[in-house]
Amino acid sequence: MLPLELLLAIIIPIIGLALAGYNAASVLGIKPGKKELTEINMLIAEGAKTFLMREYKTILPTGIVLTILIWIAYYFIFHSGLMAGLAALAFALGAIGSAIAGYLGMYVTTRSAAKTAWMAKNGMGSALSTSFKAGTVMGLSLASIALLIVTILYMAYSLVLPTPLWAEALAPVAFGASLISLFIRVAGGIYTKAADWGADIVGKVEAGIPEDDPRNPGVIADNVGDNVGDCAGMASDVYESFVVVLAGALLLAAVFRLTSALVRLSIMVATLTLISTLIGVQVVRGEVKGKNLAAAAMGKLNMALYTTIIIAAILVAIYAFLAFPLMEAMAIFISDLLGMITAVVVLYVTEYFTHYTFPPVRNIAMQATLSASNVIVAGYSYGLLSAVPTIFMVITALGISYVLGSMFIPPHGIEGGIFGTAIASVGLLSLAGIVISLDSYGPVSDNAGGLVEMTGMEDVREITDSLDAIGNTFKATTKGYAIASAGLAALILFIGFIYEVVERMGIPLTQAFGELMVIDPRIIIGALVGVALVYFFSSSTLASVGKAAGELVEEIRRQFRTKRILELWPQEKPDYNKAIDIVTSHALKNFLVPGLSAVIVPIIVGLALGWIGLVGMIFGVIIAGFPRALLMANAGGAWDNAKKYIEIEGIEVNGQKFGKKSEPHRNAVVGDVVGDPFKDTTGPSLNPLIKVVNTVSIVFAPVIAMISLINPAAGPLIMHLISILMI
Amino acid sequence: MLPLELLLAIIIPIIGLALAGYNAASVLGIKPGKKELTEINMLIAEGAKTFLMREYKTILPTGIVLTILIWIAYYFIFHSGLMAGLAALAFALGAIGSAIAGYLGMYVTTRSAAKTAWMAKNGMGSALSTSFKAGTVMGLSLASIALLIVTILYMAYSLVLPTPLWAEALAPVAFGASLISLFIRVAGGIYTKAADWGADIVGKVEAGIPEDDPRNPGVIADNVGDNVGDCAGMASDVYESFVVVLAGALLLAAVFRLTSALVRLSIMVATLTLISTLIGVQVVRGEVKGKNLAAAAMGKLNMALYTTIIIAAILVAIYAFLAFPLMEAMAIFISDLLGMITAVVVLYVTEYFTHYTFPPVRNIAMQATLSASNVIVAGYSYGLLSAVPTIFMVITALGISYVLGSMFIPPHGIEGGIFGTAIASVGLLSLAGIVISLDSYGPVSDNAGGLVEMTGMEDVREITDSLDAIGNTFKATTKGYAIASAGLAALILFIGFIYEVVERMGIPLTQAFGELMVIDPRIIIGALVGVALVYFFSSSTLASVGKAAGELVEEIRRQFRTKRILELWPQEKPDYNKAIDIVTSHALKNFLVPGLSAVIVPIIVGLALGWIGLVGMIFGVIIAGFPRALLMANAGGAWDNAKKYIEIEGIEVNGQKFGKKSEPHRNAVVGDVVGDPFKDTTGPSLNPLIKVVNTVSIVFAPVIAMISLINPAAGPLIMHLISILMI
Repeated sequence: MLPLELLLAIIIPIIGLALAGYNAASVLGIKPGKKELTEINMLIAEGAKTFLMREYKTILPTGIVLTILIWIAYYFIFHSGLMAGLAALAFALGAIGSAIAGYLGMYVTTRSAAKTAWMAKNGMGSALSTSFKAGTVMGLSLASIALLIVTILYMAYSLVLPTPLWAEALAPVAFGASLISLFIRVAGGIYTKAADWGADIVGKVEAGIPEDDPRNPGVIADNVGDNVGDCAGMASDVYESFVVVLAGALLLAAVFRLTSALVRLSIMVATLTLISTLIGVQVVRGEVKGKNLAAAAMGKLNMALYTTIIIAAILVAIYAFLAFPLMEAMAIFISDLLGMITAVVVLYVTEYFTHYTFPPVRNIAMQATLSASNVIVAGYSYGLLSAVPTIFMVITALGISYVLGSMFIPPHGIEGGIFGTAIASVGLLSLAGIVISLDSYGPVSDNAGGLVEMTGMEDVREITDSLDAIGNTFKATTKGYAIASAGLAALILFIGFIYEVVERMGIPLTQAFGELMVIDPRIIIGALVGVALVYFFSSSTLASVGKAAGELVEEIRRQFRTKRILELWPQEKPDYNKAIDIVTSHALKNFLVPGLSAVIVPIIVGLALGWIGLVGMIFGVIIAGFPRALLMANAGGAWDNAKKYIEIEGIEVNGQKFGKKSEPHRNAVVGDVVGDPFKDTTGPSLNPLIKVVNTVSIVFAPVIAMISLINPAAGPLIMHLISILMI
Repeated sequence: MLPLELLLAIIIPIIGLALAGYNAASVLGIKPGKKELTEINMLIAEGAKTFLMREYKTILPTGIVLTILIWIAYYFIFHSGLMAGLAALAFALGAIGSAIAGYLGMYVTTRSAAKTAWMAKNGMGSALSTSFKAGTVMGLSLASIALLIVTILYMAYSLVLPTPLWAEALAPVAFGASLISLFIRVAGGIYTKAADWGADIVGKVEAGIPEDDPRNPGVIADNVGDNVGDCAGMASDVYESFVVVLAGALLLAAVFRLTSALVRLSIMVATLTLISTLIGVQVVRGEVKGKNLAAAAMGKLNMALYTTIIIAAILVAIYAFLAFPLMEAMAIFISDLLGMITAVVVLYVTEYFTHYTFPPVRNIAMQATLSASNVIVAGYSYGLLSAVPTIFMVITALGISYVLGSMFIPPHGIEGGIFGTAIASVGLLSLAGIVISLDSYGPVSDNAGGLVEMTGMEDVREITDSLDAIGNTFKATTKGYAIASAGLAALILFIGFIYEVVERMGIPLTQAFGELMVIDPRIIIGALVGVALVYFFSSSTLASVGKAAGELVEEIRRQFRTKRILELWPQEKPDYNKAIDIVTSHALKNFLVPGLSAVIVPIIVGLALGWIGLVGMIFGVIIAGFPRALLMANAGGAWDNAKKYIEIEGIEVNGQKFGKKSEPHRNAVVGDVVGDPFKDTTGPSLNPLIKVVNTVSIVFAPVIAMISLINPAAGPLIMHLISILMI
């Protein structure tokens, strides 16, 4: 019989999906009274759909090959068709869930821009609730699907397999989610910025036409890119972290042989927080009133977040104190709360460093009065600094939840401590539903603003502009949340990997830990390889944007030349699809090197340096990748807003005022453009990177463990060979 | 009685110093026949001397306080006045040696520019041998002083103290060297780029006067800065690495209880390589002939390097096979060779990524035809990539020397392996003499070129320009060498720190290693703190340049205004000293925060998280700092040369040629200016950072070990307190 809790963990996500469906239907049911709105909107929506489908088609063969590989590997290690089949199934479900979450979210958000623009005619309240409803479709379905898949897998697998085998068969779900997310983040990230750069270089710079001018053949590709990056990219990334954390917590609970109440705890925390999310999203409705409409709208959105957090904290507290002894319940509650506090702190830190109401962005803008170089150095310097408080918040949450866990969560000690940090991570990730709802509302209002501009709906301009500005803030701050999530998810899985290998090798923990000493050359070399991987991956994603943009530039120039688009009586309409096609194929092509390296390097290191070298490598990737993601996302966001600050408020030096088109503005634009691939390609791509090295390792952990068992000196063996060859 | 080897290790550095003195005398004895040459040169030389002396004066109180602190700490732990006195003495000698090496080198190189310019009248050969001779003063005295101090300390201390106490008393020599080097690199780095930026912003940008125009009050400060950074900075940095590696190898040999032949080995390798350096530098003399004079000069300089390496390899081989059994000798020889090969590979990798005869810099230059932002992104991307091959070379050298050591160097196993890597590091650093000679020749010829331009000696322009170009190449590639040296030195000392703590705590190695597992939260949290320190340090050094430059800008503007310098009949001469004074005081002031953080954070972490947390922190600093130094130095070098490439060779797009003052050139300048603080302030400052966290830890290791012994859960204790406060 099902325990009541698990029944809840199935019913709530289904309700979540139902609400998402209802919200989608009510937004998509709006019929804008202006035909052009829908027409242009559909160009973007179709372009985004086409890109996503091509991505999925491209990844499909790899996915199938990997499914088979996992089946073979597990069959080979466990000599069990059931085990092999379930592992392969978990992988496939993880990937499919990610693909569906990305698709659903994209579908609704891209189609909702025209609806929002139209509803803006009824005032701020209507526009806000429409765009936010569209955003909730993404947020709720992502959180619901992740929770539903993991719960069902847990229920089914733990029914047919003993502990901890069910958890090991379940773990590949995280790899499936990672794979799709890596793909969407990297290929999507290259796409979005290549389209942006390419369209701008020929349009704004060479031809001197405005940014969203429909005569530019790259303009739809550019808008498609925004949706691909901000919606599908963010959704698949956070979905992945959520699945990774849930699967990681289950795996740890299983290998630690925790009580079934603790095993189910992470699912319960996620379920209870999803309940509070369903309540929290209801806050954003009705009229927006007050003197400052933008501030009032912002207030409503923040209220949704805080409502969710407070209700979640209450629900988790009640559950914990009912289901666990006093001190254990307290440790669980505080750890969960710490995770949620981390989310809030990270959102604020990110806002502080990327929004122009605070000193950093204003200082960067002031540097624009000196030179473009000063803008770059100042932004980079703040980007570096911005990583520090986030790292300290993460450390604090980890440290306290570890201590509480080691004191109060049985079996206490190191394993109780680790499980405490897992609860904190679940707490952070359980807010995915509300955070992504807030985030996805951004691109909807952004696109709505663009449509209003293109179709000349001057009367609602002010409303969509305010919404867009708020959306931009959430878009930037959510990046911080996604990075912190990725970092914590990676750490949980990193520890899970170590325990999984030890479990497979069947050696005593103390012996295994004794081998994992920092001083071991395999750890040091592995860590250096990990850092090198982060550098290589970052370099190649950055370089890809330039390459793909170059191809688009050629195409747009060709169209301007042959179609005479820019003449007073243009001969032909621009071919938007050709432009989309070129960026798509180059983004997919350029995914290959960084994408493959993320999946293959861990396997090579595992085979060459053994599991100890691989532990070092994962450690190096996390330590180097997590702060680098913060640096790149926040520096990019700060440069972006320094430019906007000059445009919107202007800067004053010695009584002289500088605004749009001034020399300082041109300098700030240099920073803004540098920031584009920083914050939208390489920075976000590092999130799946630090997770995928873990998930691929955990999936192939049984194989690596076996090799390390056969030849405990797997590392030195390879080195011996090299040294013998040298002599 | 002295063993013969140690006698050699005293005599050779004395000969080295004598040759340095002879070369100094012969260069300084040249009397240029043109008065202005000497006059302007002396302005720069005096400015540099003033800055260095003010630096020393500023650091003196800190040095004295630290000397006393070390005395107290060692007295308190060892209850021995002798031990305390020797430790304090080692610290003081390390610092004084570094200060002397920096001062000597600076003294001769700054004064040699006028001599080189004058000797250029006799042709390329004379100019080359003059500037190279000046360079050897720095290179030879640095290597000789480092070796001499360590040898004498070793001899004296091992006479009066038992093993391993003598090594522990000796270790503070590395901290002394680090402290000075940190100071010169950070304060000097801020100085050089603040002066450069400040002078350029008002001079080139606002007033439109040429770069080296004597009417600019900041021009001498700018030239002083170049010498401070390129000569004193590089010399103290590499001196530090050399001392750190020698002291680290001695410490390891002592705590491993190796045979006395192995204990002395690192000193012997350094001595033999110094012999070969004394021979190698003789290669650069006589006429430079051939069609391409620049290539011929470059050939001579490279020949000096290779001569040194080949003779060193032969000498070390002979010594090893005479003093050790066959396989052990082979392991020693190959490890040493690997270190030297690493030096060569790193020099080439750096050249590949920063010189415009290779694709990376050319590609960056081509991006300048698109926009300044493209230049930044391309350069940054190549900077990231450039770290990868260097990391892999270091890994290869470490891996192979570890395996050889663990197989053939007694006591074999992990300790033999670690000692193998120490030999490789000594091999790399033993080339310091020749590498720094090649490097220091750069600023001499650079300044000579400037003097020739300022004094209108058109007839020798071509010769000094060629020499300057070659000098720039060596200046850039030496940065790679310095970073690799710092990385290896830090790793050696990192391991030394662990063994030192274990020695002090008196716990069995296996138990200690069992505690040092990667999975320990103190290691993970420590590593994250380490990365945060690297980010904070980088951010604050970058930001300081802007701040100090801003102050200089105000001063230059004021002088232009009040002294009417730019008018046809200027009222007064510019006040160069005022400008120097302002940059100096701001550089020193801005040193405080990053400098103190580098020294204090390790101590705080050691007290708060215990020695295990500190191990994690050092690991994080090395893993994050080493590749970041490569990224920043190489991206900066690449941007610099992309600009020079456009100036010298020009770029062609669709048949259109772009050179100096073109739009692409302006775009490339943006990259060049961004690269300035990257390559000359923050990048080089990371070298002493990754070393100083080690040296400060090793000096206070006995204290930290004692605290960790008193309270084995030192880390959790602090965390318990926090968590209790939270509840």
